[in-house]
Amino acid sequence: MKYNYKKLSLLQTRINRLNHLREVAFWDQATNMSEKGLNARSEAVAELSQIIHQLESDPENELVILGAENEELSEIESANLHEIKRKYERKKKIPAELLKKKQLATSLCEHDWRKQRFDNDWNGFMDNFEKVVLYSREEAKILAGEFGGSPYEALMDKYEPHLSENSVDNLFGEIKDWLPDLLNRVLVQQGDAAPPVTRGTFQVEKQKQLSLEIMKIFEFDFMAGRLDESIHPFCGGTPQDVRITTRYKETEFLPALMGTIHETGHARYEQNLPSDLLDQPVGQARSMSFHESQSLFFEKHIGGHPNFIERIHPQILSIFGKQPLTNLDNLKRLVLNVKPSLIRVDADEITYPAHIILRYEIEKDLINGSIKAKDIPLLWNEKMKELLGISTENDYCNGPMQDVHWPEGLFGYFPCYTLGALYAAQWKAMICEKYSSFDDIVGKHKLTPILSWLDQNIWKKASTKSTQALTRDASNGKNLTTKHFRNHLENRYLSHL
Amino acid sequence: MKYNYKKLSLLQTRINRLNHLREVAFWDQATNMSEKGLNARSEAVAELSQIIHQLESDPENELVILGAENEELSEIESANLHEIKRKYERKKKIPAELLKKKQLATSLCEHDWRKQRFDNDWNGFMDNFEKVVLYSREEAKILAGEFGGSPYEALMDKYEPHLSENSVDNLFGEIKDWLPDLLNRVLVQQGDAAPPVTRGTFQVEKQKQLSLEIMKIFEFDFMAGRLDESIHPFCGGTPQDVRITTRYKETEFLPALMGTIHETGHARYEQNLPSDLLDQPVGQARSMSFHESQSLFFEKHIGGHPNFIERIHPQILSIFGKQPLTNLDNLKRLVLNVKPSLIRVDADEITYPAHIILRYEIEKDLINGSIKAKDIPLLWNEKMKELLGISTENDYCNGPMQDVHWPEGLFGYFPCYTLGALYAAQWKAMICEKYSSFDDIVGKHKLTPILSWLDQNIWKKASTKSTQALTRDASNGKNLTTKHFRNHLENRYLSHL
Repeated sequence: MKYNYKKLSLLQTRINRLNHLREVAFWDQATNMSEKGLNARSEAVAELSQIIHQLESDPENELVILGAENEELSEIESANLHEIKRKYERKKKIPAELLKKKQLATSLCEHDWRKQRFDNDWNGFMDNFEKVVLYSREEAKILAGEFGGSPYEALMDKYEPHLSENSVDNLFGEIKDWLPDLLNRVLVQQGDAAPPVTRGTFQVEKQKQLSLEIMKIFEFDFMAGRLDESIHPFCGGTPQDVRITTRYKETEFLPALMGTIHETGHARYEQNLPSDLLDQPVGQARSMSFHESQSLFFEKHIGGHPNFIERIHPQILSIFGKQPLTNLDNLKRLVLNVKPSLIRVDADEITYPAHIILRYEIEKDLINGSIKAKDIPLLWNEKMKELLGISTENDYCNGPMQDVHWPEGLFGYFPCYTLGALYAAQWKAMICEKYSSFDDIVGKHKLTPILSWLDQNIWKKASTKSTQALTRDASNGKNLTTKHFRNHLENRYLSHL
Repeated sequence: MKYNYKKLSLLQTRINRLNHLREVAFWDQATNMSEKGLNARSEAVAELSQIIHQLESDPENELVILGAENEELSEIESANLHEIKRKYERKKKIPAELLKKKQLATSLCEHDWRKQRFDNDWNGFMDNFEKVVLYSREEAKILAGEFGGSPYEALMDKYEPHLSENSVDNLFGEIKDWLPDLLNRVLVQQGDAAPPVTRGTFQVEKQKQLSLEIMKIFEFDFMAGRLDESIHPFCGGTPQDVRITTRYKETEFLPALMGTIHETGHARYEQNLPSDLLDQPVGQARSMSFHESQSLFFEKHIGGHPNFIERIHPQILSIFGKQPLTNLDNLKRLVLNVKPSLIRVDADEITYPAHIILRYEIEKDLINGSIKAKDIPLLWNEKMKELLGISTENDYCNGPMQDVHWPEGLFGYFPCYTLGALYAAQWKAMICEKYSSFDDIVGKHKLTPILSWLDQNIWKKASTKSTQALTRDASNGKNLTTKHFRNHLENRYLSHL
């Protein structure tokens, strides 16, 4: 009776338990670890990762999966088996030798990059990076050969299963059609007004207090998670104990606050996955795009909403006092400020997609083999000029060397950021169909109705269906479109100035 | 060429890496874990523990050990092999079934005890505890049958290798000979004086600041460790990143400060183990008694030294301001205050050994089978009256139910506390032979000479020799004696009032 399925399910539970410990170690490394602890930590995590990899790629699993496919399973169990099989088949196809070579190449490349970036040392970077590209291409080719599609598609699949290059080309193509014009109109509108005040004095302890207060509005469960500080904000831990972090600067408070709200979006997704399925793939978050849709929904559709700024303005004043920056009108203009710039992580909502489309186009061609690593700076400069009108000639550190993704070999990840923005806007549109008082809720009321929609349509669905199916279920049968994102940007950035 | 030894050594490295992750998880659980995270954490740690146990008790190890014994090894390698063999042989003798039953019994007993203690529910406690005793006796009998000695001795060996019941009987017998009289003399001296002021106002943030400042005097390496808070203070983490904790109360600062100093003693031992051997048993701390000798040396021979109180008094004043409690004379009297009481963890240096001797005598008879669990309260009461003149009749929660050790099945651990006190006093005497200016150093100078003695004689020696051999090496060829401890108590408690 479901002997094979039960065996698989037990294996997933074991893997999940070991992943739990790896997550704790990662979180600790980012928040608390002592300087001299790094080597021992890296070795310990590598040891555990090897054990996890052995369990995941054990050849015996193949027969057990075959056996389970002939057992009578419930719908959830079938969906779980589907996820288990998908992951297993991708694991087993990659030779251990290649994995190891890639691991070494990326860890060396990432390590040296931390310094090379500051030295603007593109040639030094290339020495390592070409190997990262080589092994990533090899991996992509093997996966594509086995499962079809382009090599780049095979890498995207790790972060967003079943996503085709074609559909991303179409969506990003649409954005490219209307984004430059929209950006221009917003910049023209902003044109003559004096820029908002961007600096003030904001004690870290007080910023923490504000972050914790705002997390309560988003109904973060403090019995199942916590907020800490780290250099790069992230959401980690486990669904039962989610660890989010933010980063504080004494001169401004909005970045840390919006960072907290962003991570709270990730956190609530994790905290509200179906509690009885947490140790199985079917009970885990659907994909990176879906995850990003939650964080961006929280950050942009609620946190950055002018009504929300108005709502929390009394708290801001009572914590930081009156300053030019904390003036309500200034805060609203600050949140809506648009300015083309070189750095992705500092980009506003309108220019952000340009950064992603640029990276997507380059890494797609790089992995599929139509360009070489050394072609990147020229292409980067061309595309930055085309999309945002800025030159990055010879400025590698603020150009192709700015992100950790490529040195780490994370090809196929970037598109998820903008897909996430598209999904977030689509959810917003769907919620507005149900609650026409959306703006009012954001400004004055408990967020529960909005959060419940997310809970029912995204969080509790976990990986029970494909991204595409969940999207149609949540969107009156419609697929993902750029329409809602465009509407959102036009409404927010062209009507408030 | 040393094929077997290298194989064993590699296995130890792997075990050590996995232990690293378990330590991180434990520390996180005590300091940061969210309430809802407990179940998943317990399951994850149990999963990892099982993997570690499999590696440690793998029957294949037996042949490899045999092989290594015929290889040409250096002195350090031989010592390492000795430790590996000792641990392996003890692991393999305990049937997995018994381990599991004991694990279940202790975890149930400990869990229920947390409530039963508050309810003073001895009968409820007995229902669980009798099983803990049963399985502990079984384990003890198996080990004693295999390695000789009494069953209780076999359990002590886990914490203090090669320690005989006979030697503990002799040492503790000596203490019993002189302690009641010494206690009496101290109490008579204290008799008429008004008791010192014990309460004041001490903000937690300021106490943290003081703790961190004092850790610097003890040359704690903040690049390889940190101080946090937890309900039960402990020293955890790994030698490269030691995690100590303390506990703060707003009404008094000495307990948290002395707790910090105590844990700093444990921490410096860990931080200064031989860095090239940390992943091997030979490079790890010698034993629980030795560990406790470091923490007690720091706490009692330095931290509680009247000269040290005088030394840090300006810092105390500048952080907490003038209060009746922070008056120098009051502080000195507070540190030296002696008062027989019911609770071990609150006991002063003079009455503490009585608490340990009482537990030792009871648990020894319990494990060796001459008394039953139900006999404990009567014996406890008798011994408390004999040693400290206090009755605990029907007061189980402040009597035999006060410690976590028995519910957790940690029989054989208690004697290490008082052995640690004896060792600490012996180290102090040895250091004084080398540095007659000991009191002066403690009061005014860098502690480096004192700490260097510990580094050379204890820390850097790790487990390269037996406890007994290291003791003789450090003590002009002499074994452990109670003489130095008695001298210390008489000097400190009878001459300052």
